[in-house]
Order: sequence, then structure tokens, then C-alpha cells
Amino acid sequence: MTTSPQQQTNASRWIAARTAHFDSSGIRRVFDLAAKLKNPINLSIGQPHFDVPESVKQSMIQAIKDGRNGYSPTQGIAPLRERLLADVHREWPDSDRKLLVTSGTSGALNLALLALVDPGDEVIIFDPYFVMYAPLVRLASGIPVLVDTNAAFQIDLDRFVAALSPKTKLVLLNSPGNPTGVCLDEASVKEVAEICAQRNIALISDEIYRHFCFDTPFVSAAKFNPETIVVDGFSKSHAMTGWRLGFVHGPAEVVETMTKLQQYTYVCAPQPVQWAGLSALDCDVSPYMEDYRQKRDRLYAGLKDHYEIVKPDGAFYMYPKLPWGTGQKFVEKAIEHELLVIPGNIFSRHDTHFRLSFANTDEQLDRGIDVLRKIA
Amino acid sequence: MTTSPQQQTNASRWIAARTAHFDSSGIRRVFDLAAKLKNPINLSIGQPHFDVPESVKQSMIQAIKDGRNGYSPTQGIAPLRERLLADVHREWPDSDRKLLVTSGTSGALNLALLALVDPGDEVIIFDPYFVMYAPLVRLASGIPVLVDTNAAFQIDLDRFVAALSPKTKLVLLNSPGNPTGVCLDEASVKEVAEICAQRNIALISDEIYRHFCFDTPFVSAAKFNPETIVVDGFSKSHAMTGWRLGFVHGPAEVVETMTKLQQYTYVCAPQPVQWAGLSALDCDVSPYMEDYRQKRDRLYAGLKDHYEIVKPDGAFYMYPKLPWGTGQKFVEKAIEHELLVIPGNIFSRHDTHFRLSFANTDEQLDRGIDVLRKIA
Repeated sequence: MTTSPQQQTNASRWIAARTAHFDSSGIRRVFDLAAKLKNPINLSIGQPHFDVPESVKQSMIQAIKDGRNGYSPTQGIAPLRERLLADVHREWPDSDRKLLVTSGTSGALNLALLALVDPGDEVIIFDPYFVMYAPLVRLASGIPVLVDTNAAFQIDLDRFVAALSPKTKLVLLNSPGNPTGVCLDEASVKEVAEICAQRNIALISDEIYRHFCFDTPFVSAAKFNPETIVVDGFSKSHAMTGWRLGFVHGPAEVVETMTKLQQYTYVCAPQPVQWAGLSALDCDVSPYMEDYRQKRDRLYAGLKDHYEIVKPDGAFYMYPKLPWGTGQKFVEKAIEHELLVIPGNIFSRHDTHFRLSFANTDEQLDRGIDVLRKIA
Repeated sequence: MTTSPQQQTNASRWIAARTAHFDSSGIRRVFDLAAKLKNPINLSIGQPHFDVPESVKQSMIQAIKDGRNGYSPTQGIAPLRERLLADVHREWPDSDRKLLVTSGTSGALNLALLALVDPGDEVIIFDPYFVMYAPLVRLASGIPVLVDTNAAFQIDLDRFVAALSPKTKLVLLNSPGNPTGVCLDEASVKEVAEICAQRNIALISDEIYRHFCFDTPFVSAAKFNPETIVVDGFSKSHAMTGWRLGFVHGPAEVVETMTKLQQYTYVCAPQPVQWAGLSALDCDVSPYMEDYRQKRDRLYAGLKDHYEIVKPDGAFYMYPKLPWGTGQKFVEKAIEHELLVIPGNIFSRHDTHFRLSFANTDEQLDRGIDVLRKIA
């Protein structure tokens, strides 16, 4: 940049205060470091290592050829909405849930927070948490209230109840969770869901990893609280992260308000992607999930004698305890060995863990295990 | 809906106050009416009536086949950014403009406002205006200040200067404009741009219709104010409205702040669409524009003796004065004749005009002309 000092001053003075809450994500910093390595072992990536299933690609291609390229209705194309709603009603037969097709799960989450959070409202987030949660709450002028999970990354109900206040508007649940890979146990999901219902606190359940449950069936908070706002999507299950397709279902007032907001912000999810989503629902992803279960086992077996690890039962992450030093020092050491992992303080107030993704080839996982054993 | 009264009360009480500014758009109401007509003459549509050019479709299909389906970098794929920046630097050789690929022009606009507007900041919008502007300013906790244009829909500089206050943060320009189709004259663009520079007011120029100038070459405010934030996109020029691809260029601080915000909201523009955008830049759209010029002439010739019309020199809209009654009454009368148009009070404080789109076949335009003559 060679702008004059005057110009820099002007543009800098324009920047809104809310943006101070948005740090350049540590994940991106690791990606920048990754770009400099010749043959990195990349266990930092938050997306599947397989490509979009062929049948889903073909549906997208057909939609493009068929001219389905203009705006879709704000709420999504009717066939996809009806199909998704049918699945929702099969799971919760007595519910009146409404559904909105969104631009990724992030779009659903952002719109839900904008629809619900007034300035100063408190939003409960369990720590460690997905990196977007706290900044998105701030973007909606809310106050993130971080509640530590227990040593197994399960909800500590006493801490949860102690964190509730008259200003608590909303609780955010994420199971299976990023960055821990942990599925919340049914008893505590039930308890949190019921407490929210009793106290008239809104509840968002981020279920983007719902298909990635290795040991026990997935349990949604909506089972115990019919007003749960469920955000979900195709990005992780069908490797469609760059296609931007998600959805949300929940109480009519909430979903209708989100639809109004979508009209002015995201406009609609990309139309040809929506047609591909319809075909994705016919696609059996269980072989991918079985593959990830084996990768989870491989990585866990390789590391469990060298690191303190809560064995993950979902998603494609593992969140071991740092064996020494700070997250930054540990990540720097890993990068010296061409290994990319994410420091835990991106996901937590505590600089005590680091995140591994096992969405990678067995060969890369084995290389990663070797390095991690070496630097433990 | 058969939710219990208690449930309805709960979810209703959750809705954030900011959402009250988002009305279900009148455009959507017309679309709902349209759905009930058997053979409507639809002159209400805000997107091209042609399909995406074949070469652009093929590029998207190739990107999908090549596995370009995961997240892109937040700021956009490097080849598209470099190509767009090269075009920007060709137009403004001495500038240091930075560029961000966005999820449509709406995405760029939303992020620009979130990056710049603090609570209570005033944003100048020239009336009539694109329907999204005022609600998006409200979403960023700003205050829209509407400034009437003159009878030719050109900027009235006296009114503009009178509307400036110490709280004026930002001015929004849109030329060629929606809903009027008017290209702002160079002298007033220059004056507004220079006043903004002198007073340290940010300036956003919405140039989504820049390729649709029929009578005089397009003039950007950035020519007169190097810190202008330019939002642009592929939706209108390449009929890619449902693909969600736009971009923004401007001062480094602003674009970098928008990039941070994009990371947490839109994440990235759909990746395969970005590769298609690269090919769209090689696509000559001038035949489409010549086609629209003829359609403009056809519609204007058919109506000028029956309506008071400022002849549009850009975009694909015409904004005639209501011949009688209110916009709603007039639109209802048009719908009785199977004609769909948009009442002007969607775009303005004044209920004095209505919007026609000439993005349609000549046959439909002729049917529309017949009805409009009949009900004048």
C-alpha cells in the first residue's frame, strides 16, 4: 500500500466499532503458514477430504444446464424444502416446525442470532466452542457468556445453571462438537433443553455434524424442547463446504423472521446448489462415516499413550491436551516438522489443548502421528 | 400452525427489535399475486430474461468436475481476484484499491455497511432507491436519511448538502439506478464524490448495472474520489442472480475489515461460481445490452404518449408516474389485466410512480404496453 497518510487516516476512521470483535482467525493464520510448506501434513482442515459424491455433482450440473440459475424463492426451492420438512416431520411427528434453506450453516446461525439477540442479551456458549460463535453473538450486539465444560468436554450442569441470568436470551449447543469431536450425553442435552423451555430461553442446536456419530445414535435437543432452533447443512456430510448450502428449522415466528432477514442479506442459497441438495438427500453417506470412524480409531490408537485425549465419538476432530508450553509454541514446533494443527485458544479461553482433524488420508494421519509422538 | 398459545408467546417474545425494520417486500407480494395468474405479463422482475451464457455455464461445470467444491479463501480464489484487480487498475492506474469477492452484490453491500456504520450514524440515500438500502442501514444500526432526487431522478445538490450533518457517515450512490433506470449525470456524481472526500464521508457506489448504459459511457464516482467503495457483481450482466457472485473494491482498511466480517458470515462466495466468474469476464455481453437498449426504446415509444416518464438510459427499468390513484390501486387494476408491475412506494417515501422491468420478450412487452395504455 502506498496510500497517503491522509487517506489511511480517513478510511481508518470510518471503521465501525463492532468490527474490533473480529480477529483474523487463527485457523487462517495456520493456513497462511501452510502455504509456505512444501509437503505439509495438514491436520488443520475443517472439511472432508473426499470430493462431492458424483451423483450430487451431476444434479448440480443438470440444474445449470436446465437454466435453474436465477434467484430462487427466499425460503428455498419448494422441492428441497418439502423434502427436508418431510424428514423433519418423520423425526418429530407432532411438530409444526417451519424450514428455511440458507447459505450454509453459518448463514443459518448468523440469521438466527440477528433474529433473536437484542443489544445486551446474553448468549450461553459452552467452552471450547466453534470459532464463529462468540464473534457472531457480538455482531448481533449480544454478550457471549462462556461456560466451561468438564474434563470430558461434557456439559457441567451446575456451571450452566450458575451462568443463567435474567439477561440470558439464548443457549448455543453443538453436538457432535467442533473442536472436540465429542457427542454430548443424552441426559445433559435433555436437562439443558428442559431448563431452556422452563425459563423461556431460546435454544439453538448446531447439528452440522449430526451424521458423524461413531459410537451412539445422534440425539437432538429438539427431542426434549420442541421450540429448539436446529441449524444443519450439507457442507460436512456431502463435502459441499464451498457450495454454501444449509438449512434451519424451528418455531414459525423465528423461521419467518429469519426469512425476512435472509431476503436482505443472503438473498437465497445458490439455486443450482439447492437442486443438488435434493439429490444429496438420496445419497448414502454411511461409507464415508465408517471411513471416518476408522480414521478416528487410527489417530486415537497412535496418540493415546503420548497425549491426554478425550476419545471423540463424532465429527472429525480430536482435541488433545498440550503436552507442554503454550498452544502457539506447540504449533510452531509442529510446523518445524511440517505438521499443521490448530491451537486451542482459537476455540477457548484456555490455552490448554490443540485441535487435530482426521479428515485426511491414512498416510497423512500416520505422518502426523509420527511427528506428534516425536514432539510430545 | 397449531402450536399452543404458550409456545407462540415464547417464540414471539424472542424476536429481536431490529427485525421490525424488515417488511416482507412488496416485490415478493407481487410475486405471490403473480403465482395465481395463469398467463401473467410479468414486468416486475429484477433479473435478466436471458440464461447464463453457455461458456460461463461450461466453466462452472468444469470446476465442479475438477473438484473445486470446498471452501475458497475468504477473499476469493486468486485468479479471479487478480483478474478483477487488473481491470480495476486499468481503470484507475494510480490506485491502491483492494478487492474482495463476495456472495453477490447484496453481500458486498451488507458487509460494507456492517464495516462502516456505528449505531446512530446517518447514511444518505437518494430517493427513489433500491429496496434493500434502508433496511440494510437499519440492520447496521444506522439511520437512513432519504434525500429526494429532482423530477428527472437526478441528484439535487442543494437538498444533498442540506441533508449532511455531523452524523453523516456514508453516502450511497446507485447509477444506473434501480428503480428508475437513470444514469446520474457526471457533474453531480463529481460534486457528490468531491464533497464526500472534503468532509471525510465514506461513499459507496453500487455499480451492479454499470454494463447497462445505453446512451452515454458509464461514469464511476471512484473517478473523482479515490476512496470510493465500489460494489459490483455478475448477477445482472451475466444473468447469474441465483449463483451469488459479487465483488467490492476500495481502500485497504475497508476491504480488509469486510474480509474479516465475511469470514464469519458469508464464509466465501460459492467456489465453483468463482471459477465461472473468471470465464464470465471473457464473455462479450454487449449483444445483450444492445438488446436491452432496443427493449427500452420499444417500451418508451409505446408508453410515452400515455404516461409521464423519465426516459431511462440504463439498467432495465422504467419508472413512470402513476396516471391516477395510489400505487396499490393501480397495481390491482394492472393485475386484473394479468399485468404485474411494482408500486413505487417500495422504493420511495412517495406513492407517485411504479416500476416496469423491460427484461422480458418483445411479445410480453407489447402485451404490457397494451394493458398500460388501456388503464392509463
